[in-house]
Amino acid sequence: MKKLTEILGIEVPIIQGGMIWCSGWELASAVSNAGGLGTIGAGSMYPEILKEQIRKCKAATDKPFAVNLPLIYPDVDKHIQTILEEEVPVVITSAGNPKLHAQTFRLAGRKVLHVVSSAKFAKKAEDAGCDAVIAEGFEAGGHNGREETTTLCLIPQVVDAVSIPVIAAGGIADGRSMMAAMVLGAEGVQMGSRFVATHESSAHPAFKDAVIHAGEGDTMLTLKELTPVRLLNNHFADQVRLAYQSNATIDQLQTLLGRGRAKKGMFEGDLIEGELEIGQVASRLGNLMTAAQVVNGTIEEWKKCQALVGTWKI
Amino acid sequence: MKKLTEILGIEVPIIQGGMIWCSGWELASAVSNAGGLGTIGAGSMYPEILKEQIRKCKAATDKPFAVNLPLIYPDVDKHIQTILEEEVPVVITSAGNPKLHAQTFRLAGRKVLHVVSSAKFAKKAEDAGCDAVIAEGFEAGGHNGREETTTLCLIPQVVDAVSIPVIAAGGIADGRSMMAAMVLGAEGVQMGSRFVATHESSAHPAFKDAVIHAGEGDTMLTLKELTPVRLLNNHFADQVRLAYQSNATIDQLQTLLGRGRAKKGMFEGDLIEGELEIGQVASRLGNLMTAAQVVNGTIEEWKKCQALVGTWKI
Repeated sequence: MKKLTEILGIEVPIIQGGMIWCSGWELASAVSNAGGLGTIGAGSMYPEILKEQIRKCKAATDKPFAVNLPLIYPDVDKHIQTILEEEVPVVITSAGNPKLHAQTFRLAGRKVLHVVSSAKFAKKAEDAGCDAVIAEGFEAGGHNGREETTTLCLIPQVVDAVSIPVIAAGGIADGRSMMAAMVLGAEGVQMGSRFVATHESSAHPAFKDAVIHAGEGDTMLTLKELTPVRLLNNHFADQVRLAYQSNATIDQLQTLLGRGRAKKGMFEGDLIEGELEIGQVASRLGNLMTAAQVVNGTIEEWKKCQALVGTWKI
Repeated sequence: MKKLTEILGIEVPIIQGGMIWCSGWELASAVSNAGGLGTIGAGSMYPEILKEQIRKCKAATDKPFAVNLPLIYPDVDKHIQTILEEEVPVVITSAGNPKLHAQTFRLAGRKVLHVVSSAKFAKKAEDAGCDAVIAEGFEAGGHNGREETTTLCLIPQVVDAVSIPVIAAGGIADGRSMMAAMVLGAEGVQMGSRFVATHESSAHPAFKDAVIHAGEGDTMLTLKELTPVRLLNNHFADQVRLAYQSNATIDQLQTLLGRGRAKKGMFEGDLIEGELEIGQVASRLGNLMTAAQVVNGTIEEWKKCQALVGTWKI
């Protein structure tokens, strides 16, 4: 079987998650230039913005990069058209059924990865013709599965269920967590939160600052009745908690969430009223880095880890 | 610094969790005889039962073993007396402040481990004089922390916060998950669910059968307003869900839980009305084993994993 790095044409099996409002062409091209797979997050972009971002990314790197495409997005057909026209080499689909579009991309010679939260969905993605799956655990930031399966429990199960490569996501931010994921059977990792806290991410500086100062227990998985999402605790998160305590209906939760809260928080830096999507691993980040420092530092630590494992005796 | 195995006087750094209703002297002595650390779970025992269990364990093994002592237990002082009198070599405290009792045990020459769910509590346990901490993630069965931090995110944080050895718990059931935990910085692992599904565990055969047939997403963490607990989905779990949907008060939840549900489910095998405490990793178990098969199989797989890691190239 072909290795994940060969399938994707990259040097190291580190994929940058396509986080809404945080991952434009600057981050994507920086990660790809460092040897990983950079990803433009289409979930927060109008079709014309996505086209512009892809073009800027292609101008900034001649290495493979990806577009993350949430399949529930209203403009999904226009996005697919753009991805095909602009010859984006890798498509990462999420939040929907990969069956409809995987073949379209494959016939056009593109690689397709699908994000899953269970072995059951991983098998479906394999059957749909995906080249690999990204298995994302409960600790991950942003939208999340309903099963609440953690990365540690999820990866071995997905690995045992499919024969395509598995990429681990959720809770991974450095070389030791990357090595742990690979020990569990993953061929590579996707990191989201770690790349939010980079100089190249398009997150608002105030949000980046909040992320690197997060402590343990500072995120929560909530709004399960709408789409489960992991958020940083702030005033908006408190309002959500109060709404649950006063037994809010689904409609009331939807009204409270409203429209544009993610943009307000992550892109405009409103730390009070905004929705701040981030993973549990935020509490382990500590500082802002360049995307290249993340990629190189992770690989360096991974190698040290590998040497260390070799010395252990039981 | 002394190695964990040296501190505890055991051969391999595998600790069997002291699960209520599932871990009597037969399981504890079998794990200790296999080279790990067997644990009698005092949480479901009256003082005279605990004394009898300790004596039977001592008759069945001359190796070190532990007693798990939930500090919220009403008979805790009598239990401490018994543990001291019967010369139990290792005490694992949980669910409470280790400060009050750690010194008592240490002065008596015993080793003390404390179960924590955050780096903050781990530091407190170290300051209280504990010999090691058991850091337990969100995926673990039974009583669980409020922070919901998963093992993957928790272990590196705890390892970075304390200088005593860290034992990882939650989501660990075999050699690859043990290796992953050690890559994250743990010196050893505690396994609970895997030992519930052994021939020597005192769990009811019907409960063991339900555990090995559990699928992904078949557990949930609930009753957070009382004490957070991870349970296998069954009729009782459905009743809890319905209670939440109808906005039950804390008193109503307490009444629904009632008394003796854990015994009814795990010890008496009432899979309908009983409370069935188990971890997410139940879906990865597959079969009943002997305790020695668990210990030996884990170490064997761990060694294969170690050899495999050495061959990787990035």
